[in-house]
Amino acid sequence: MANDLIVLAYSGGLDTSCILKWLIQKDYDVVCYMADIGQDENFSAAKKKAMAIGAKDVIVEDLRKEFIVNYMLPALQMGLVYESRYLLGTSVARPCISVGIVNAAKKLGAKYISHGATGKGNDQVRFELSVYSLWPEGKIIAPWRLPEFFNRFQGRSDLLDFAKKENIPVSATPKAPWSTDENIMHISYESGILEDPAEIPPKGIYKMTRDLDQAEDYPCSIDIAFKKGLPVSITIPSGQEKSLLIQDQLKMIETLNKLGGQHGVGRIDIVENRFLGLKSRGLYETPAGTILYTAHLDLEAFTLDREVLRIKRNLQDKMSDFVYNGFWFSPEANYTRKCLELSQESVSGTVTVQIFKGNVLVLARKSPFSLYNKDLVSMDVAGGFSPEDSTGFININAIRLKEYARITNVPK
Amino acid sequence: MANDLIVLAYSGGLDTSCILKWLIQKDYDVVCYMADIGQDENFSAAKKKAMAIGAKDVIVEDLRKEFIVNYMLPALQMGLVYESRYLLGTSVARPCISVGIVNAAKKLGAKYISHGATGKGNDQVRFELSVYSLWPEGKIIAPWRLPEFFNRFQGRSDLLDFAKKENIPVSATPKAPWSTDENIMHISYESGILEDPAEIPPKGIYKMTRDLDQAEDYPCSIDIAFKKGLPVSITIPSGQEKSLLIQDQLKMIETLNKLGGQHGVGRIDIVENRFLGLKSRGLYETPAGTILYTAHLDLEAFTLDREVLRIKRNLQDKMSDFVYNGFWFSPEANYTRKCLELSQESVSGTVTVQIFKGNVLVLARKSPFSLYNKDLVSMDVAGGFSPEDSTGFININAIRLKEYARITNVPK
Amino acid sequence: MANDLIVLAYSGGLDTSCILKWLIQKDYDVVCYMADIGQDENFSAAKKKAMAIGAKDVIVEDLRKEFIVNYMLPALQMGLVYESRYLLGTSVARPCISVGIVNAAKKLGAKYISHGATGKGNDQVRFELSVYSLWPEGKIIAPWRLPEFFNRFQGRSDLLDFAKKENIPVSATPKAPWSTDENIMHISYESGILEDPAEIPPKGIYKMTRDLDQAEDYPCSIDIAFKKGLPVSITIPSGQEKSLLIQDQLKMIETLNKLGGQHGVGRIDIVENRFLGLKSRGLYETPAGTILYTAHLDLEAFTLDREVLRIKRNLQDKMSDFVYNGFWFSPEANYTRKCLELSQESVSGTVTVQIFKGNVLVLARKSPFSLYNKDLVSMDVAGGFSPEDSTGFININAIRLKEYARITNVPK
Amino acid sequence: MANDLIVLAYSGGLDTSCILKWLIQKDYDVVCYMADIGQDENFSAAKKKAMAIGAKDVIVEDLRKEFIVNYMLPALQMGLVYESRYLLGTSVARPCISVGIVNAAKKLGAKYISHGATGKGNDQVRFELSVYSLWPEGKIIAPWRLPEFFNRFQGRSDLLDFAKKENIPVSATPKAPWSTDENIMHISYESGILEDPAEIPPKGIYKMTRDLDQAEDYPCSIDIAFKKGLPVSITIPSGQEKSLLIQDQLKMIETLNKLGGQHGVGRIDIVENRFLGLKSRGLYETPAGTILYTAHLDLEAFTLDREVLRIKRNLQDKMSDFVYNGFWFSPEANYTRKCLELSQESVSGTVTVQIFKGNVLVLARKSPFSLYNKDLVSMDVAGGFSPEDSTGFININAIRLKEYARITNVPK
Repeated sequence: MANDLIVLAYSGGLDTSCILKWLIQKDYDVVCYMADIGQDENFSAAKKKAMAIGAKDVIVEDLRKEFIVNYMLPALQMGLVYESRYLLGTSVARPCISVGIVNAAKKLGAKYISHGATGKGNDQVRFELSVYSLWPEGKIIAPWRLPEFFNRFQGRSDLLDFAKKENIPVSATPKAPWSTDENIMHISYESGILEDPAEIPPKGIYKMTRDLDQAEDYPCSIDIAFKKGLPVSITIPSGQEKSLLIQDQLKMIETLNKLGGQHGVGRIDIVENRFLGLKSRGLYETPAGTILYTAHLDLEAFTLDREVLRIKRNLQDKMSDFVYNGFWFSPEANYTRKCLELSQESVSGTVTVQIFKGNVLVLARKSPFSLYNKDLVSMDVAGGFSPEDSTGFININAIRLKEYARITNVPK
Repeated sequence: MANDLIVLAYSGGLDTSCILKWLIQKDYDVVCYMADIGQDENFSAAKKKAMAIGAKDVIVEDLRKEFIVNYMLPALQMGLVYESRYLLGTSVARPCISVGIVNAAKKLGAKYISHGATGKGNDQVRFELSVYSLWPEGKIIAPWRLPEFFNRFQGRSDLLDFAKKENIPVSATPKAPWSTDENIMHISYESGILEDPAEIPPKGIYKMTRDLDQAEDYPCSIDIAFKKGLPVSITIPSGQEKSLLIQDQLKMIETLNKLGGQHGVGRIDIVENRFLGLKSRGLYETPAGTILYTAHLDLEAFTLDREVLRIKRNLQDKMSDFVYNGFWFSPEANYTRKCLELSQESVSGTVTVQIFKGNVLVLARKSPFSLYNKDLVSMDVAGGFSPEDSTGFININAIRLKEYARITNVPK
Repeated sequence: MANDLIVLAYSGGLDTSCILKWLIQKDYDVVCYMADIGQDENFSAAKKKAMAIGAKDVIVEDLRKEFIVNYMLPALQMGLVYESRYLLGTSVARPCISVGIVNAAKKLGAKYISHGATGKGNDQVRFELSVYSLWPEGKIIAPWRLPEFFNRFQGRSDLLDFAKKENIPVSATPKAPWSTDENIMHISYESGILEDPAEIPPKGIYKMTRDLDQAEDYPCSIDIAFKKGLPVSITIPSGQEKSLLIQDQLKMIETLNKLGGQHGVGRIDIVENRFLGLKSRGLYETPAGTILYTAHLDLEAFTLDREVLRIKRNLQDKMSDFVYNGFWFSPEANYTRKCLELSQESVSGTVTVQIFKGNVLVLARKSPFSLYNKDLVSMDVAGGFSPEDSTGFININAIRLKEYARITNVPK
Repeated sequence: MANDLIVLAYSGGLDTSCILKWLIQKDYDVVCYMADIGQDENFSAAKKKAMAIGAKDVIVEDLRKEFIVNYMLPALQMGLVYESRYLLGTSVARPCISVGIVNAAKKLGAKYISHGATGKGNDQVRFELSVYSLWPEGKIIAPWRLPEFFNRFQGRSDLLDFAKKENIPVSATPKAPWSTDENIMHISYESGILEDPAEIPPKGIYKMTRDLDQAEDYPCSIDIAFKKGLPVSITIPSGQEKSLLIQDQLKMIETLNKLGGQHGVGRIDIVENRFLGLKSRGLYETPAGTILYTAHLDLEAFTLDREVLRIKRNLQDKMSDFVYNGFWFSPEANYTRKCLELSQESVSGTVTVQIFKGNVLVLARKSPFSLYNKDLVSMDVAGGFSPEDSTGFININAIRLKEYARITNVPK
């Protein structure tokens, strides 16, 4: 009888390499799946390594554009930000990878999907909820939650011993005393020496962005054009007569990452609440995302009606939680996303930002759909406004307050 | 018969000087009221000027500490921020001044309060709703909303003519082509050339903070201690053996303003939605407020339970609108404020921030009440956590998603 | 020069008849507009009366179907209910009438719209905000807010005197000591002797529904079919072999009103908060609306995902306020309505209700899109469910609670 | 060595009797705990039975007053209602029982708590989350989630066989084809033949309330007095000169249950969303709770400021979910409860309701703290109100709408 087929989300690192071997030893056929979502990775080396360990096959899929177009930019369009600060760079990557691996599993007729996410983290949840949404009859093997596995491999040294014994090559570079997750949107840093929230992180930890004292000494202005809430082009002074116009989404993100990185834009160091009920400390750098988020926020305030903005913000806060918690493909996220997209009908226009020394400063904004009416607001123009109306407006608003003042003097 | 007595909120500027004269000419007795809430003003000169114009008296009241303790710091404790960006520096000043002027009016037995706020702005609303809450039987004269006044004074030149004719001294310094509001928390800039949201503001407009290219070249670290959400002290390296510890609230804000100013911290340029239904563009600089806001946000995420944080954020967004719209003394604000204060019971601890080149970077945080549990979250410690539980957690969360996947295939 | 043309929302009663005369006396040409939205009114008599008073013309428009299809049923589809109890029968009628009168005004080239709503009520707001949304350049004359008018007519007796003097016929029936608003959805009763909220209303006040002691002695079962949240048919046992099936919306509402009326369904006696900041007491009877609201609520719980339901309920509460306050055509209501409609994609199915003695009891419900899964929930079927998963689910949910228990013992 | 001690939540029924035996056979010492929260139970018979099976002891604790004072009435004070309909009669009983059993376990030095709740339901969650909150170091044995148990007892017949074999007495009365949960607040009916939501429940299922056709033919009026949102007394016409006044909380609930039952008040038949992600169908009857809920809702609208009411309603919806899901003792519920209690400061007064044929009709209400101002709202009194102010109020509110009308004509 043929062995059951597993598609393993493979990273090339120690954990998933050991898992690969372990699964093979348990008589599974294993195909490795690697999604290129912009992380700094030698995919061919990783592929070679997996084949050497015994993978039936290794699929490497370039999902960078897919990730940007269907996950990163929609998240920015929706204005998603977790607990007021985190732009969800890892959270939105998980459903993207899940689609890739589920498609592979279905195509290959696999029975299982496996991954190397640990049992305390968010990623196991995001990954598995996405898989179950896309493939309800699918089955998942999460070795780090199986006693047979986690009792055997109680720490990194057990993995290293296993690797040595099984001839699994181990990177010569010593492991950083923290773990990272990387894609074209961001890099996160957590665990290890970062676990103590009272400890100031060491210098030199960040990879995408320069330290502020190393940032460029001249500011850079960028015009960012949005259509229905999505960035559609950026224009950057080139030093030449003609500015540089970029419309391709991948190129746009790469350019903003580079510029943002040079100017030290987009770092945060936060304590966040995981879905499992733990608090954890994370460092994130999200250069392009931070620039786009800031510009989009400004354009929304400019183009959306005051009350629509409030409803939208409320939905956006909920959606941020859904996405962080792994519910990208849930009924509530599907619904909320449609509502949020509806809110963006008029969020079109151009925002000029200056990036400089870690700051993203909004300088100016334009839109054909803005509800901003200069004549109406102007101190110099009487346009469409009778000052006496304000008196009535205030007096009517004061009715409740006066009644409250009246009653609060009654003893209770 | 004696004339009716009016207490006029007097600024010393052209508008309220003309209003003062105009009220006197209408046979009112006018006492001028000036609150010192930290604005850059020559109060004795203003007082002399008002007396010269014909005021019965001029009251100058130092409300700086009152403003900080009862308005600015509670706003930061509550985490108030309007439309995701504005720290409400003007909005929280209005109720503070209103208490001062109402107390004066009651003490003097005045019948009216008058002010120079215009008919399109928020301040008239904030001012009057506060006054009506505190003094429901009080009456307000808002000349800029009286046809008799605004038809006569249709622009600045009419005021200048009137001033000339009535011997009202006019400042020799030419008026800036925008208007400002200033207190110890912030300065706002709006109107005039700033009315076009597509126009980049001129250099040199800001007063409290340096431009980024003029900011200090060395970062400054500050330890900010909070108790129940209120900042109670700051500690700053002094270059000496002993750091500088500041506990007096006024001194604390002055110091943070100075440091924040040197490092270019706390500027925003936004389009906002006024209560009256207009959009307006404003520039704000709030150095101390921005530093404290950032530190407090971090401490909350660290010390509050995840779900309490969400309820609190929701209340905070509502409270921000109440305060912006002038409802500081309303039943809803009274209630919400009590709820928000309740949420801060455990928001005590110390946050270390670094201010540098316009950035406020959180470096570390400590608290005896944090729900952060290093053992629980640690990758290296099994503490109190069974990885198999995560499997059950995920599977149960997947039930709804699988049912949804099942039903979404039914044609509708 | 020709007189300016006004379209007056005319009711045939004393107030609008006097307003009609008063406007004519002020040299306006007045066309009266009457919308038939199901109120008990002799339109031809009213028309004759208005012409006799001096109207240039009287337009009577049958908007009953329009009202049901575009206002009443969408409100029920959205689940609108104000302050937990009031089904908004008057609130949704105002925008409907506004469309009619604005269309008439535009067609006739009128300059003004006028109405007889009083200055303390909601209807002036609903009416005028709707008109301004539909016709931003239009102008409104509201006599009850003009000093010239309200100082002259300080009470009903002044109007009666004026009517007598100007030969305006007055109904022989003495006026009820309260006021009513009536349409095919509901009748409201307020003011007069009802103003004291501690006073039990007199017997015999209600017109659409029988008192409970007069209600039918046998229950009536109705099957109500919904498609995407809208009722599309009702089926009623006819005593014959074949049940009665009604699909026409007007007929459906008339039938449910009749049945609901016979069974005493849909009365409330409440104190509500008006938009102007007053509290008022109102009695409402809404037979068909109450039946449909109850059935729809049940079908939603049956067909919507748990989390979608929560988002939807939140939006519905906001929309209820928008509609009550007169913002039916506002940007926020337009947006929220689209979101609410989106939520109803799967709200299709049939609910069986029994109406009896004032009650609407849900007996059973069916839907092809329900997320209800009998196998999953059944005590007798293990289907798709591993009880051990619940252990993990509970344990993970307990993490936060245990941490909280740990920290709440720390003194603060 | 002594056996480990378990405290078992014992009901006297088949399930927990078998569990008791099973635990003893696994060498545990078992003390049974029974809370009297008003269910119809022969406690002494149950005690005897448990002792016969082999319990070390049986604790019967009368928690009726405790349940009413600390759970039922606070839930009504907070206005809790799950998914718009369910008054949470079972949900609020679980934390009450948990306190009792945890106290017993601590006092006895037990190591475990055990219960007979099934693996698909809400009660296991409510029970265990409560226990973990109160006793974080405690351990729980839930046999229905242990494979060893649920694989052995796959249905009722397995339990009956076991009971027979082990001489566990079984009730002679045949089990109803549904399951119930009962306390002084309500009875719930679910499972079995009720599992099909399209099936109309059989006649005669309800125990606390009469069918409508058996309900009393004369209405009953009750005055319910509240203090800070809590009912403090009821007054009922006695047919004598003096009405019956009841202030004792237990007596009050018993009386309202009796009256409500005679009049058929408080039944619902709903499909609800369980915390585990399933939908289930339940029938509930809650006579006293329904009467008090209705009266309280009315008093709130009467005494609370409009905006406070909205904030409160929002918190109440969240709290309802917390309580339904078992988080009564969670940080978020603790916090929200304090906020909700704060909102009730002025919810004092008396509501007159009439109960009749299943209806609870509010007839009148009085309060010394009401914000209702008859003079202000009266059509006949000009009191404190200038109709012209309404014009300004409407015009200012129309600004946004006109701007929106202006911009919505721009093509996007």
